[in-house]
Amino acid sequence: MRIVVLAGGIGGARFLRGLKAAAPDADITVIGNTGDDIHLFGLKVCPDLDTVMYTLGGGINEEQGWGRTDETFRVKEELAAYGVGPEWFGLGDRDFATHIVRTQMLAAGFPLSAVTEALCARWQPGVRLLPMSDDRIETHVAIEEDGEQRAVHFQEYWVRLRASVDARAVVPVGAEQAKPAPGVLEALGDADVILFPPSNPVVSVGTILAVPGIREAIADAGVPVIGLSPIVGDAPVRGMADKVLAAVGVESTAAAVARHYGSGLLDGWLVDSVDAGAVAEVEAAGIRCQAVPLMMTDLDATAAMAREALALAEEVRA
Amino acid sequence: MRIVVLAGGIGGARFLRGLKAAAPDADITVIGNTGDDIHLFGLKVCPDLDTVMYTLGGGINEEQGWGRTDETFRVKEELAAYGVGPEWFGLGDRDFATHIVRTQMLAAGFPLSAVTEALCARWQPGVRLLPMSDDRIETHVAIEEDGEQRAVHFQEYWVRLRASVDARAVVPVGAEQAKPAPGVLEALGDADVILFPPSNPVVSVGTILAVPGIREAIADAGVPVIGLSPIVGDAPVRGMADKVLAAVGVESTAAAVARHYGSGLLDGWLVDSVDAGAVAEVEAAGIRCQAVPLMMTDLDATAAMAREALALAEEVRA
Repeated sequence: MRIVVLAGGIGGARFLRGLKAAAPDADITVIGNTGDDIHLFGLKVCPDLDTVMYTLGGGINEEQGWGRTDETFRVKEELAAYGVGPEWFGLGDRDFATHIVRTQMLAAGFPLSAVTEALCARWQPGVRLLPMSDDRIETHVAIEEDGEQRAVHFQEYWVRLRASVDARAVVPVGAEQAKPAPGVLEALGDADVILFPPSNPVVSVGTILAVPGIREAIADAGVPVIGLSPIVGDAPVRGMADKVLAAVGVESTAAAVARHYGSGLLDGWLVDSVDAGAVAEVEAAGIRCQAVPLMMTDLDATAAMAREALALAEEVRA
Repeated sequence: MRIVVLAGGIGGARFLRGLKAAAPDADITVIGNTGDDIHLFGLKVCPDLDTVMYTLGGGINEEQGWGRTDETFRVKEELAAYGVGPEWFGLGDRDFATHIVRTQMLAAGFPLSAVTEALCARWQPGVRLLPMSDDRIETHVAIEEDGEQRAVHFQEYWVRLRASVDARAVVPVGAEQAKPAPGVLEALGDADVILFPPSNPVVSVGTILAVPGIREAIADAGVPVIGLSPIVGDAPVRGMADKVLAAVGVESTAAAVARHYGSGLLDGWLVDSVDAGAVAEVEAAGIRCQAVPLMMTDLDATAAMAREALALAEEVRA
């Protein structure tokens, strides 16, 4: 079975671990969000791709969900001693090596997709990890801070500001001119199932869908497209998805997110058991819906979620 | 008193520490060798400039004479885990930060001289440190390895091969097209004394002299030019200077090095007490010479050497 997953960072990576356990023989391709990529200290940092790679490759800091295990921050401390920041972005020493290798390969002319493949040769994530695009796309967030309107990089909004101010708009800068990375459209065309993990529907899955051709390829694939709600009981399971949902005029409810994706894209939607009341509303929008436990508390619970998603896909297919 | 010093790495940096102690009120400009600069992992590394900066700024690893004190090697270990080398070059985590800042500033368009000034703003070395040139110059060494003739970067010859094979030639690639960095010729023109510390006469001081205009500016400065022999008792005090001296056809003796510089450049030359027998030979070549202790065993001994050099300068001037 060929499964394609559109993944953001922590939520997507943890779901993928469950999916691998639920479908050990499946051929899994991950289309990773690169809209939160950022250039720091002259280095190209791809937080979502790395979170997937480290999580599936056994190198992740399990507690925080991002960054490397057993990490130190010597380089960052020294950069700060030179007065060079930003200090709000936690780049560890082991993590720096990844960005140094990536930057060096990009400078040598390799596209991000080839660089990602090379990095994965070490990590062996057990999935094929593709960036959504080899072109530079940066999600910017329009905010009002100290009475001034300005646009900040998504990382600045998310990490420095901790989404503490309202987002007026979320714009994947560069997406319109971008092309899907090699292999992305082919993987979607060859897929048996396409999954949206409980990732952020705006800045993770939404950014991937903003790359021209990807949304259409999913809609035209003719295979079940199943999503899992990142909203449980009207609040994001983790992160601050409500803030960016508001920016695109979507309520923070499991049903509203399903309607946001829409029946043109989504065939099935899993909501958490506490949101069982939303099932009828989602089904009324033309999307098959079931209520099941959606908390990724451990690998078993996550694998069970993945099995539910695959079962819903078979139901939709039949 | 305005003193200009042509410095390589460890020997030059340690001598400078003694000079600062010997002449605390002097205005010292250091023209640093950049011929051993190397691009590693996409980063611009300037070993000699950094050794001077770290040594005078209190950040040096005192035992090894290069690199940072209290250093760790997490980034390097991770790079090796990606299969990315070279492994023979010991870049530590704290050191990496310096190269990241430098590379970022160079990429932003600042010349190396401005970058060096910015780095020194943190380290406060107490001297004005100028790279010999803002242009790229790389010392290459022609060797025969496994029956094949090839040219290697000086760092590869020095660090990887530990000068274990004969050097056929030493070439400062790019020097002919290079210009002295801003301030270099002005400092030489304004100097009261010019000093050659006991640095490598071929790959340190020799490379600086290979930048068109610098040798002439020293010869034309009309002020005492005093050198200290890096060869004591027919062997280099440290390093493997004999290997590269052989490549340029110079014997590893204190007198031969003085003659190599020549009376057109050098007014005075200090040899170690054990080489007192060489004084007559050096003076016969038209260079004032004295035998004094030249082992930089501690700061006092090094300061005494610097005082002897300044005293010889006054003798020459008179």
